[in-house]
Amino acid sequence: MVRSAAKNHKYVTVVTSPCQYEKIISEMKTSGGSISGKSRSDFARIAFGLTASYDAAISKYLNKQAGIRFPERVSISLAKTMELRYGENPHQKGAFYKLPANAEVNVSSSQIMEDETQISFNNLLDVNAAFELVKEFSEPSVVVVKHLNPCGCAIDNDIHKAYQKAYETDVVSAFGGIIALNRKVDKALATTIMESYSLFGKAKGAAGFFAEVIIAPGFDDDAVQTIRTLKPWGKRVRLMSTAEIDRTKIDCGEFDVRCIVGGMLLQDRDLVGWEPALLSYPTKIKPNKEQLEDLRIAWICAKHVKSNTITLVKDRRLIGVGAGQMNRVESGFIAFKNSAEDPKGCAMGSDAFFPFADNVEQAAKNGVACIIQPGGSKKDDEVIAAADRFGIAMVFTGKRHFKH
Amino acid sequence: MVRSAAKNHKYVTVVTSPCQYEKIISEMKTSGGSISGKSRSDFARIAFGLTASYDAAISKYLNKQAGIRFPERVSISLAKTMELRYGENPHQKGAFYKLPANAEVNVSSSQIMEDETQISFNNLLDVNAAFELVKEFSEPSVVVVKHLNPCGCAIDNDIHKAYQKAYETDVVSAFGGIIALNRKVDKALATTIMESYSLFGKAKGAAGFFAEVIIAPGFDDDAVQTIRTLKPWGKRVRLMSTAEIDRTKIDCGEFDVRCIVGGMLLQDRDLVGWEPALLSYPTKIKPNKEQLEDLRIAWICAKHVKSNTITLVKDRRLIGVGAGQMNRVESGFIAFKNSAEDPKGCAMGSDAFFPFADNVEQAAKNGVACIIQPGGSKKDDEVIAAADRFGIAMVFTGKRHFKH
Repeated sequence: MVRSAAKNHKYVTVVTSPCQYEKIISEMKTSGGSISGKSRSDFARIAFGLTASYDAAISKYLNKQAGIRFPERVSISLAKTMELRYGENPHQKGAFYKLPANAEVNVSSSQIMEDETQISFNNLLDVNAAFELVKEFSEPSVVVVKHLNPCGCAIDNDIHKAYQKAYETDVVSAFGGIIALNRKVDKALATTIMESYSLFGKAKGAAGFFAEVIIAPGFDDDAVQTIRTLKPWGKRVRLMSTAEIDRTKIDCGEFDVRCIVGGMLLQDRDLVGWEPALLSYPTKIKPNKEQLEDLRIAWICAKHVKSNTITLVKDRRLIGVGAGQMNRVESGFIAFKNSAEDPKGCAMGSDAFFPFADNVEQAAKNGVACIIQPGGSKKDDEVIAAADRFGIAMVFTGKRHFKH
Repeated sequence: MVRSAAKNHKYVTVVTSPCQYEKIISEMKTSGGSISGKSRSDFARIAFGLTASYDAAISKYLNKQAGIRFPERVSISLAKTMELRYGENPHQKGAFYKLPANAEVNVSSSQIMEDETQISFNNLLDVNAAFELVKEFSEPSVVVVKHLNPCGCAIDNDIHKAYQKAYETDVVSAFGGIIALNRKVDKALATTIMESYSLFGKAKGAAGFFAEVIIAPGFDDDAVQTIRTLKPWGKRVRLMSTAEIDRTKIDCGEFDVRCIVGGMLLQDRDLVGWEPALLSYPTKIKPNKEQLEDLRIAWICAKHVKSNTITLVKDRRLIGVGAGQMNRVESGFIAFKNSAEDPKGCAMGSDAFFPFADNVEQAAKNGVACIIQPGGSKKDDEVIAAADRFGIAMVFTGKRHFKH
């Protein structure tokens, strides 16, 4: 009926929401009872938006029932959450749309606390990258992200120490970064974050510090007050509050969508995490318990860094990141060059297999103790032999984590 | 009617395409005239896919008529072109969908020539990145892409020379790359591409060469035969043939979509290119004609590299790329370190403004002659003063080109 009415908008006014009553009443009062053609066409436009999303929901449901992941036609239906100041760049307009609600704790379902500055397109991309990484860990963890890549990540039994360790991964890049935590922010933690520069940054050569966004499963009231008042940038930082993270409620049905001009690529989200049962240990030396824990973090971090990726982890902290390079040795070079501390004894992660032994030689030269990578290269034998020659423990995951 | 029939699929079989006739007839023949409940529900599922896409098209049309870019509800309707071997990683399923046809020459509307190897999710992302960059230039141009970033780009009056120059930007990274050309591939060019390693690569330290994809506005028949037969990898390379590039037919209405968990960010495509009228020249020294041409290429390349970006261009060729780093000085460091030739006298491009003078100091140390960047930093005065001190010509574009 809505559809028929909308088609017939030349003669019919189709009202699809109580929010429209006021406009209708006011127009009828002014005109003496009639609705203009312009308004009827506008109501029809809104009605077709509704029927399109309604049929998309039915289609999605029926495809799911039939077990069809990639049907011949797909309609991705979205509801606008907010217009953004602009898109990736000021000359591009942008808006944020939600998918129909799901139970998973995520950036889209978080609450943005009032602040002076509108959240931006790039903020939302970055905060999603940061929060999806910190969600991977059940222990108290902190992630700092710049340009979609983590430039800080640490796990500790104490969330305060995890914050300090994550910030100290790269105090230069942390300037203007996105901070994601998987624990509620209390007043003490808020104070530490605000004082990052004077407490830890200055001594390590930072030029200053502010954060663009802080996201966490809740903020205590006095934590918010501390953030808003302790430093001038506290008024501008966007605070995003989520529900407690529940790793059992992951929405496996959601598509990850990437645009190419004239089309889109749809894929499953990369939901593979740490799978201890699938690991294999091809080298003579095997990692000990502490090393395996660092390898786990190096592997999960590598999943969240733009490919090609090399990650270095020591004592449950990301100390080096090589992101987005056109060759893997270059990624290694950057990771070691910018390492927060001496990489001797660290764990190294690679998001994809080593095509040659060159990354292992690079690792050996820098004192790496253990490596985690997918395995599966034609030259695995050479790569394993190199690791054995240098006394490095290597673990194969059997999975790859490209992130383009 | 289609919708009503689909809703009533318990009693009605709704046929929405002549392709379904055969299935219907064969089922009726087998069953003695009836259609099973399972089939009726399947036809209904397909019908709802159709009505959803139909209403999405009406909604899109009406929003466009009303001049509304980001309506309250958006349905993005897509038709499947092909299932892909897998998504970004083998444990993710993926498929390629087209948007309703547009007149713009793009990867989605290209023709994939028969070959032995299926095109992959990452291939399509990469080939889109490569083709969109090469589309920016009207002169004969060639781009080589790895992991979404150009590792080669050159312009020359002769497409053969442009190919050699682009390949020689980084012969190591070009291994397994994506090659995009804006001119038809003839037999001679095909031969040069196939022989890249022996002709140019070996002398420059390459370990070998093959291409994943070659995309161009057409391939001569004997060019295809050459590619398929000259080297074993020629059987596997995906050849994508497009129509002649027509820069006047850009689809400004198309959304660029980025996923975050639970939602999507929609923005205008970044269609800002070279705008000579908007340039400003704040330094004492101004670029000469040749320098301005290199600055143009550095700027356009920077637009197509993952942010933060530094590009170096000399004699109409990209010679260095710093991609996707968490800070801009690091991007500069990588670009200079891996420069294909002495950067002395080159043009430097930055996708965003310089927050400090450090990048200018870095440029001066490496002999950069001229710089192009958006301008607009709080410290522009310091940045301009540094350029003047080192005798570097600097150009402001007034636009930013982040690409996350």
